[in-house]
Amino acid sequence: MTRQLPSATVARLTVYLRSLSAMLADGVERVSSEALAETAGVSSSNVRKDLSYLGSHGTRGVGYEVQRLSGNIAATLGLTHDWRVAIVGAGNLGRALARYTGFESRGFDVVALFDADQLIVGNEVGWLRVSDVRDLEVVLARTRATMVVLALPGTVAQQVCDRVVAAGVHSILSFAPVVLQVPDSVNLRKVDMATELQILAYHAQRIHEPGDGPGRPSA
Amino acid sequence: MTRQLPSATVARLTVYLRSLSAMLADGVERVSSEALAETAGVSSSNVRKDLSYLGSHGTRGVGYEVQRLSGNIAATLGLTHDWRVAIVGAGNLGRALARYTGFESRGFDVVALFDADQLIVGNEVGWLRVSDVRDLEVVLARTRATMVVLALPGTVAQQVCDRVVAAGVHSILSFAPVVLQVPDSVNLRKVDMATELQILAYHAQRIHEPGDGPGRPSA
Repeated sequence: MTRQLPSATVARLTVYLRSLSAMLADGVERVSSEALAETAGVSSSNVRKDLSYLGSHGTRGVGYEVQRLSGNIAATLGLTHDWRVAIVGAGNLGRALARYTGFESRGFDVVALFDADQLIVGNEVGWLRVSDVRDLEVVLARTRATMVVLALPGTVAQQVCDRVVAAGVHSILSFAPVVLQVPDSVNLRKVDMATELQILAYHAQRIHEPGDGPGRPSA
Repeated sequence: MTRQLPSATVARLTVYLRSLSAMLADGVERVSSEALAETAGVSSSNVRKDLSYLGSHGTRGVGYEVQRLSGNIAATLGLTHDWRVAIVGAGNLGRALARYTGFESRGFDVVALFDADQLIVGNEVGWLRVSDVRDLEVVLARTRATMVVLALPGTVAQQVCDRVVAAGVHSILSFAPVVLQVPDSVNLRKVDMATELQILAYHAQRIHEPGDGPGRPSA
């Protein structure tokens, strides 16, 4: 890997990979860019462009080999080995994430779960025992976690984020509803459910004002 | 609102709004595009371009009025009234979302929570009682929900999504790890935690191979 892929391509590769995994499970051996585009919900020209970055060019009239393409995408995304993930925050969201089956099936092992609340520390969530966030550095090192998910209140997010960065973790996924500052060497991605709803709201108001009713068929 | 804003602008407006809300709470009256850019983690040229779509032009050397700009963005995003949100799926994730305080504080009222499991139906989650998903259409109509969040397994997601669409809901946020098909008239946004981790993995493998150790300082 020498070339940085466009971020939109990286995001779409994860979608193709999911579609290809389903095809593999169904015993599908070959797929056209059109069929892959349809299952992934993007244009077939996007599919061809994205896959050409990987050096995968489909054969006209034959398409792509599902297994080879799947392996190629997984290798490009760095998913050929398991990643070790620690979750900080064992509230509702942190517990939901710790039990999220979608992680393990796609190569992400949740190896630690932290909380500051002494009533929660030591509890079992799934097969994990909640660690004390005071021991963050020690447990991150012991579990060799290379990714951290922040599922904690905005008020403490920056402070915990700073400790995670200082511990040498370069990949952070934050669910905290605040803007976090990290050094350039750290990759921070943010998931904010309220932001997603706000974007939906923007589009929804263009269709109908809620005051006009819920927009259901009158029948 | 007659003009469709670029999707990247809509996403950034939600970030500016969050930063401006924090400034309002701190009693800040004016902000420069540079300062707003820094708190939002984007370039100041992006800030100026995004805000010019709204007709908000900062005054050189003075900047933007925080309160006016905040109101302008909220109006643009359609956040001047509350949106009524229903959540389908009362597992770990659905319960976490139902209790997510970030929704209500930003104008999203969770008005219903559904599950198919008869052991969960009727339970209280926060101040909501879990409804039977068999009653989906009736409860959506009664609660006048105009947005639906899908927090359910991939295996049943398309089927429930179809019912939600047929019930007249045009705005759907899905956490299910599958590609969903909806009519063009429906706005579907997808949040997939594994996808976010996969994107992190792509960047992480460019920094170091996990086999090389966790990338921590050797000291």
